[in-house]
Amino acid sequence: MIRTLLSATALSLAATALWADPLPSWNTGETKSAIISFVDAVTDPASEDYVTPEDRIAVIDNDGTLWSEQPVYFQLFYSIDMVKKMDPSALTSDALNAAAAEDMEALLATGEEGLMEVVAAAHTDMSVAEFKTKVAEWLEEARHPTTGKRYTDMVFQPMLELLTYLRDEGFATYIVSGGGIDFVRVFSQDVYGVDASQVVGSSLVSEYVVNDGVPMLMKKPDLFFIDDKVGKPVGINHHIGKRPIFAAGNSDGDFEMLEWTTSGDAPGFGLYVHHTDAEREWAYDREGHIGVLNRGLDEGAERGWHFADMAKDWAVVFPASE
Amino acid sequence: MIRTLLSATALSLAATALWADPLPSWNTGETKSAIISFVDAVTDPASEDYVTPEDRIAVIDNDGTLWSEQPVYFQLFYSIDMVKKMDPSALTSDALNAAAAEDMEALLATGEEGLMEVVAAAHTDMSVAEFKTKVAEWLEEARHPTTGKRYTDMVFQPMLELLTYLRDEGFATYIVSGGGIDFVRVFSQDVYGVDASQVVGSSLVSEYVVNDGVPMLMKKPDLFFIDDKVGKPVGINHHIGKRPIFAAGNSDGDFEMLEWTTSGDAPGFGLYVHHTDAEREWAYDREGHIGVLNRGLDEGAERGWHFADMAKDWAVVFPASE
Repeated sequence: MIRTLLSATALSLAATALWADPLPSWNTGETKSAIISFVDAVTDPASEDYVTPEDRIAVIDNDGTLWSEQPVYFQLFYSIDMVKKMDPSALTSDALNAAAAEDMEALLATGEEGLMEVVAAAHTDMSVAEFKTKVAEWLEEARHPTTGKRYTDMVFQPMLELLTYLRDEGFATYIVSGGGIDFVRVFSQDVYGVDASQVVGSSLVSEYVVNDGVPMLMKKPDLFFIDDKVGKPVGINHHIGKRPIFAAGNSDGDFEMLEWTTSGDAPGFGLYVHHTDAEREWAYDREGHIGVLNRGLDEGAERGWHFADMAKDWAVVFPASE
Repeated sequence: MIRTLLSATALSLAATALWADPLPSWNTGETKSAIISFVDAVTDPASEDYVTPEDRIAVIDNDGTLWSEQPVYFQLFYSIDMVKKMDPSALTSDALNAAAAEDMEALLATGEEGLMEVVAAAHTDMSVAEFKTKVAEWLEEARHPTTGKRYTDMVFQPMLELLTYLRDEGFATYIVSGGGIDFVRVFSQDVYGVDASQVVGSSLVSEYVVNDGVPMLMKKPDLFFIDDKVGKPVGINHHIGKRPIFAAGNSDGDFEMLEWTTSGDAPGFGLYVHHTDAEREWAYDREGHIGVLNRGLDEGAERGWHFADMAKDWAVVFPASE
């Protein structure tokens, strides 16, 4: 009798594990169902859509897809905070002075050139190792100006669950970010469970130098690669060498990545995170300077892509505070 | 009694597996011992040199390290064979005409510029997918001019064993080649057991274009990255984002990769394959136009690097023919 009870308990535990909801923070609806149906189809050896594990590649944007990107990309906040620490004598331009004074209006008035100058000041003429140490320290200390949260607490709980679900189903999960590859690698493992080797991003030229017998990789001011728009499929091919079957993004900068992913011979899934939730996060799409989504909204449905409507599809946005 | 016998057999099989030689094609000697001692140390949790699996990164050159590279890099043979198939009207230069006529002397007389022209003709203005199909077909058909072997049969059996051994011990094994990333990816999985995502190499610019609704990655004639010399640590950082702990190469083009690998805080192993075997392969180092090894020979020993003397250390060079 005890043996029977134990067996029943074991069976029921097994059933629970088997049928547990892999995406508990996603509300029941078309998008959640579509994700699960797709994953079921490509992982079922009996399905005509079956994909072998070595070809289960998922590519996922970072800013606005895995974490927030308002009011500006978090990497720009990092840059401004670094400029604030610079010696005043090094503030040799309007842009650097505006950043040091945290005068966002004045900084934006300096245009793209001014912004690039601020980013460059925070990212160059140091080694990759030194840069990563600075970013790690900043992520510990810095707080978002409106939420007061750590930046790494402004990740999207439903997307963390999606990453885990995909990996549990044999996918390799890559981050494919318009942001800096060295920047994202600082927290990709701890926050997303994504190894440094599975981060694709924009980058500056780096140079190998040996100083007093010590080799270093120095970050130089010239752009090496811009991992955005048409650059995303290029970066994906360069780093992965295979066409993905699952892509998620949130802006027109991700359009080509979704297009590339869903145009192969294998089945492909395209997902757009749609920022519709002004209460819990931000609401924006067609207008503005960050995360603009026009072509994706216009063409996504006819291309068979799916939309995560943040207000409707997500029961939770950010992970619960500890 | 039977049960005892069975147990004894099981134990002895287990012991055989445990003590089986992981590098059977390596002769007993300092280099083989050093490799095994290093792997034992970094995989033993009780060792002060222990390295966690996620940081066990091995980087291994291709031409001259995993397969032969004489009388010229095999990718140049590929290029010449493609030029031979070109329409005669497209042979608009001395270099292209020399290649089409298989006149190596005349081709070499056109210098680096001429060689680049031949390589470019075989590598550009086609999609990455088309290029890979052509390379795969060529690898099936082509035979090496002096050995008569398939090129993929001219891989080094001891190095195949080393790759397997490292992976069995929890290493991620990356190929870091001066050759083309798209070229090596065609056979890296089948021949070396290395996934496309773990191949680092030189590359041309590729461009994302959509023709009649079909997206493609087109190979352009401009160089994107040269994965050689100081470029190797840069390429490693770009693709892997971590410093390796094991590096193998065969020429001065690998010097900086070995230097970078053996200069970290973690223990690092540097291995040079030394081509000393004119009978079974080729003998060359300080002289010539391919795989020149000078600085490595001069400084390797004092840097604690190890040399696989092909004639002395390898019981077998190429895998046995079927």
